[in-house]
Amino acid sequence: MKHQFFNDYSEGVHPNILERLADSNLQQLTGYGEDAMSLQAQTLIQEASGNPKAAVHFVSGGTQANMLCLASMLRPHESVIAPASGHIHVHEAGAVEATGHKIEIIASEDGKLRQELLAEFLAQPRDEHMTKPKVVFISHASELGTLYSKAELEDLRSFCEQHGLYLYLDGARIGSALTARDSDLSLADIAALTDMFYIGGTKNGALLGEAIVINNPALQPEFRWHIKQRGALLAKGRVIGAQFLELFAGELYFELALHANRMAEQLADGLEQMGFAFLTPPQSNQIFPILPDALIEQLQQEYGFYVWAPADEGMSAIRLVTSWATPEQAVQEFLADVSGLAG
Amino acid sequence: MKHQFFNDYSEGVHPNILERLADSNLQQLTGYGEDAMSLQAQTLIQEASGNPKAAVHFVSGGTQANMLCLASMLRPHESVIAPASGHIHVHEAGAVEATGHKIEIIASEDGKLRQELLAEFLAQPRDEHMTKPKVVFISHASELGTLYSKAELEDLRSFCEQHGLYLYLDGARIGSALTARDSDLSLADIAALTDMFYIGGTKNGALLGEAIVINNPALQPEFRWHIKQRGALLAKGRVIGAQFLELFAGELYFELALHANRMAEQLADGLEQMGFAFLTPPQSNQIFPILPDALIEQLQQEYGFYVWAPADEGMSAIRLVTSWATPEQAVQEFLADVSGLAG
Amino acid sequence: MKHQFFNDYSEGVHPNILERLADSNLQQLTGYGEDAMSLQAQTLIQEASGNPKAAVHFVSGGTQANMLCLASMLRPHESVIAPASGHIHVHEAGAVEATGHKIEIIASEDGKLRQELLAEFLAQPRDEHMTKPKVVFISHASELGTLYSKAELEDLRSFCEQHGLYLYLDGARIGSALTARDSDLSLADIAALTDMFYIGGTKNGALLGEAIVINNPALQPEFRWHIKQRGALLAKGRVIGAQFLELFAGELYFELALHANRMAEQLADGLEQMGFAFLTPPQSNQIFPILPDALIEQLQQEYGFYVWAPADEGMSAIRLVTSWATPEQAVQEFLADVSGLAG
Amino acid sequence: MKHQFFNDYSEGVHPNILERLADSNLQQLTGYGEDAMSLQAQTLIQEASGNPKAAVHFVSGGTQANMLCLASMLRPHESVIAPASGHIHVHEAGAVEATGHKIEIIASEDGKLRQELLAEFLAQPRDEHMTKPKVVFISHASELGTLYSKAELEDLRSFCEQHGLYLYLDGARIGSALTARDSDLSLADIAALTDMFYIGGTKNGALLGEAIVINNPALQPEFRWHIKQRGALLAKGRVIGAQFLELFAGELYFELALHANRMAEQLADGLEQMGFAFLTPPQSNQIFPILPDALIEQLQQEYGFYVWAPADEGMSAIRLVTSWATPEQAVQEFLADVSGLAG
Repeated sequence: MKHQFFNDYSEGVHPNILERLADSNLQQLTGYGEDAMSLQAQTLIQEASGNPKAAVHFVSGGTQANMLCLASMLRPHESVIAPASGHIHVHEAGAVEATGHKIEIIASEDGKLRQELLAEFLAQPRDEHMTKPKVVFISHASELGTLYSKAELEDLRSFCEQHGLYLYLDGARIGSALTARDSDLSLADIAALTDMFYIGGTKNGALLGEAIVINNPALQPEFRWHIKQRGALLAKGRVIGAQFLELFAGELYFELALHANRMAEQLADGLEQMGFAFLTPPQSNQIFPILPDALIEQLQQEYGFYVWAPADEGMSAIRLVTSWATPEQAVQEFLADVSGLAG
Repeated sequence: MKHQFFNDYSEGVHPNILERLADSNLQQLTGYGEDAMSLQAQTLIQEASGNPKAAVHFVSGGTQANMLCLASMLRPHESVIAPASGHIHVHEAGAVEATGHKIEIIASEDGKLRQELLAEFLAQPRDEHMTKPKVVFISHASELGTLYSKAELEDLRSFCEQHGLYLYLDGARIGSALTARDSDLSLADIAALTDMFYIGGTKNGALLGEAIVINNPALQPEFRWHIKQRGALLAKGRVIGAQFLELFAGELYFELALHANRMAEQLADGLEQMGFAFLTPPQSNQIFPILPDALIEQLQQEYGFYVWAPADEGMSAIRLVTSWATPEQAVQEFLADVSGLAG
Repeated sequence: MKHQFFNDYSEGVHPNILERLADSNLQQLTGYGEDAMSLQAQTLIQEASGNPKAAVHFVSGGTQANMLCLASMLRPHESVIAPASGHIHVHEAGAVEATGHKIEIIASEDGKLRQELLAEFLAQPRDEHMTKPKVVFISHASELGTLYSKAELEDLRSFCEQHGLYLYLDGARIGSALTARDSDLSLADIAALTDMFYIGGTKNGALLGEAIVINNPALQPEFRWHIKQRGALLAKGRVIGAQFLELFAGELYFELALHANRMAEQLADGLEQMGFAFLTPPQSNQIFPILPDALIEQLQQEYGFYVWAPADEGMSAIRLVTSWATPEQAVQEFLADVSGLAG
Repeated sequence: MKHQFFNDYSEGVHPNILERLADSNLQQLTGYGEDAMSLQAQTLIQEASGNPKAAVHFVSGGTQANMLCLASMLRPHESVIAPASGHIHVHEAGAVEATGHKIEIIASEDGKLRQELLAEFLAQPRDEHMTKPKVVFISHASELGTLYSKAELEDLRSFCEQHGLYLYLDGARIGSALTARDSDLSLADIAALTDMFYIGGTKNGALLGEAIVINNPALQPEFRWHIKQRGALLAKGRVIGAQFLELFAGELYFELALHANRMAEQLADGLEQMGFAFLTPPQSNQIFPILPDALIEQLQQEYGFYVWAPADEGMSAIRLVTSWATPEQAVQEFLADVSGLAG
């Protein structure tokens, strides 16, 4: 196997982060995320988000973050609106439903929700025989690698405000989204336009960890109770605090994401030049080129990646994911091999 | 502050474990706990448990382990029986109830359940207006530092079998329990006598992580679904796998626990020699000496520990916890200070 | 307002049932559904279902029946497969999700599930990141008024058996379904081909009440616990027992349904003769004729009914529901008025 | 068997109520509790409660009322405080826990909570490792037949307001409580002093049905969603509306309770005169005399009642329950038999 493009969590942790963990290792620190490193990391994230009053909490994974954030925002009869490709709907084993809430689904080809789609959904008559939608769930980057523009996110925000809905953003790949070529959004924009979101660490160089950012003051109180109740409060909270401290002390978080993007861009540009089309526009560190099935089979001898969906006859979309640790050489080799095999 | 005896998760991780994490860091590994290191660690734990057919799973914390193990064992109307001091009842923020299940409580002075207590509880008439108890929850060591003997655990097992109950053991401090002076139980005994238990890593030298061991074959299928649904399946599962690999590759797990016990024994023996009594017999790495309130106040200037409960007039029980990283010098200094102040 | 065709629960209770309630009114009876009338009604339903070993339980409504039956069949990570029009998905306010379970949806134009649709759904790769489907939910008659044939139900049964799935049937309108012109199914067939189903009383002449029938012996134990836990165990259980006793002591249950069907048939035949088409084939006591919007507006002056969905330009499907109490005269008047207005 | 004193739901429904149901039977009415009779009954209950802005909803039973009221008031991490004898803790099969919430228990000999007990409970340190108590649950009359005085209820109210707690009152036997000899509380007092309570119909002459009264405006919005989601919204809502209409159109509700109380008083006075003591003061329609075990055995040949708890040697407390339908003759006969057997 030459290289795996399966996902962005195949490698371990950025060496600087490991060093930070080692340095503080034998200090006796307060438990449950109230240690000095975690507190400092929270401040750095508040600053990066342009909101000194944001509440910041660290948890260990994306499903955990989504499940407990959404449950904290909802009364029993309230539901979440999500695109049909939403991670919470497709790949979280019913975690949101296990907290008692229905996910109301809207079909969307590119994995994004838009004001018009929400308007159409809410235009249908609803009463107490149906759930009451209360949160709009989006992912940035989406599960199909696509991005929201600032104008689109502003539109969603304004729609949500008009309709008494919270806007929640799954930022498992927010690093890649914010450093993408096409991006006109900053972390501060995201913070200003959502009620709650999380900054993904696991898929951007951390060993584990996501930083939940709660912008809406009404949603901040007693959040640690939710974390504890869902089994997400780590005794040695330092393990995540130290990592985000390293990621946000300088520009490391964004540098790692930028590298992943550059590798994805090289892949996308190379494949485009060979004439291949894409399932969705290649914008972030997940791209979905459409290749002939025979070529795919040959590539699978040497490279790891998922076959995503059948396309036109004899063709399929595959998913290629790059990460902070993807070697440029692996990308070049892959392109050369495709070119050779396709030629 | 000279030293903190607050708990056994104040320090970071044993250096050997950190090294193991660093060594494998840049390898591309399969995600979600199916990497080679996790698989090897599972085998080592099966061997240490004397049950090659046990299912072993890694999760990140004790509340998470308890909540998802118990929920996986129960139908909606079934409940858990626990002692009143049980962690799931007192200190998990209603995590078990949040999965839909009632905890039925039995009073117990030393934090242990016994056959007689269970028999008395089940002798009360029960019908469909009450829950149906299905799992007996015990902790070893208990939340009050006490231990089960082999005979006691065998009695519980036999009672559970007679009454169609599962026996579940919270092993957050199982390392200390198994290496205690008074212990006549092995890990293989625990495995043979329970349906499911977990081996605590967080409180015994790991950065985070608990190893769930499922002995009862009927409870093994589809357990990964429960892990995922409760937000407990880490993308980089290696982070826990590598740690348990290091802990169980040799005797490290038990050596760390033994050190914690020796430090607790020195504390207990020293305090006993000075004439102090204990709330419960000092058996593991949590001890509960009863000291004069004035002495406690003076000690708190230099040492961190919790005041547990008022005792006779002017006296209180405090909790002292030692760990794999407690320096012997801190123990000796503490004893000297007590002796000096009490003299 | 000349007549309402809104639904089949606009009127009260069949007079014979009310009499039965009055007759036994002052007797002191055992509570919680263990009175003599309830027990006798259970026996009659066992007999009518051709299964003397079926467990029969009475609850007060359809959402309650669905929610507690499904929750009783599922482990936490398991889900229900339902057609997109399924009542549990659309009109139960997230009741199933509130018990912790996801509903996996399959699109179906006529509101029915078929073996091919299930096979296609299950052919997609599934793992622990998704829910594990365990129950197939169908309604007979469906929410779109359509019926399963015996062959179709046998196919579903055989598919479920092959795939380890339970088959659950929502029989809110099973009376109408079984006495329909097109029906080749008996109550005994339903009982033989499903694991669990319920016989709807509320929509077929009772004041309230549904009879849950559990055919699969593995699903029978401790069902009363589920009833109690969901708040569905009535202290004066006689109130439902007496009603089903009257309904099944003779042929009343089926006679009432037959009347509703005849009224629906007259409506359907009349409208068909005038040249109107239908959204779905008119088979039971809910029919969905497609009428010009202008005509609909005029009819709404004198008749109550729901406008169901827009059809071709200027046309909409409406829903007409008949019941045990629908006067033939109202049907004839309605047809005459349509004919007059449409002419 | 001469008579059953098992409970207050052994008989059917008061004849006037049955008549009211019959009278309106064939009218076509709006479903789901929005019919004219239900609306009128709601108005009558608002008036009787002295709060024209109270929200009134009808559901079918007490466990259902408790479960859905409490779940509607709580965020996921919040809990209910209840006395150890509370119905929700002992006899509802874990229904509250099945909605995800822990019940925090306070011991109380007479089944009542008092300000001091709450203060002591809340004085213990609490943090995010424990649940956050949000609702105080009391029953009036209590499960042990005892009553709150107006002063006691005012104290509880004031304590709850000071501590940000809701006060919820289970009024399954509120009729008996309000018409008791010792009562200095009115329905309007209850309404003024609680956030939410329910008026029990099932145990006071209705066939089924409880009227939930929500006084706190913050808890009123979207309550019908909770009713629907828990399977408690009856299609033919008239079945409960008509009953409460009859009960509150005049004084019937209180007359029925008064009769039950008079019968209980005769029993209590008679037994007291014979020298028997009581487990708790006999105040409402449940009384708990302490009788010799031999006498109890003899009485059980002719009368139905529960043996509640062992008392002094050779003695046990039994529970006698009277109802709106208890014949005075049965009471006199019982007393005569006790006197004869005990003499």
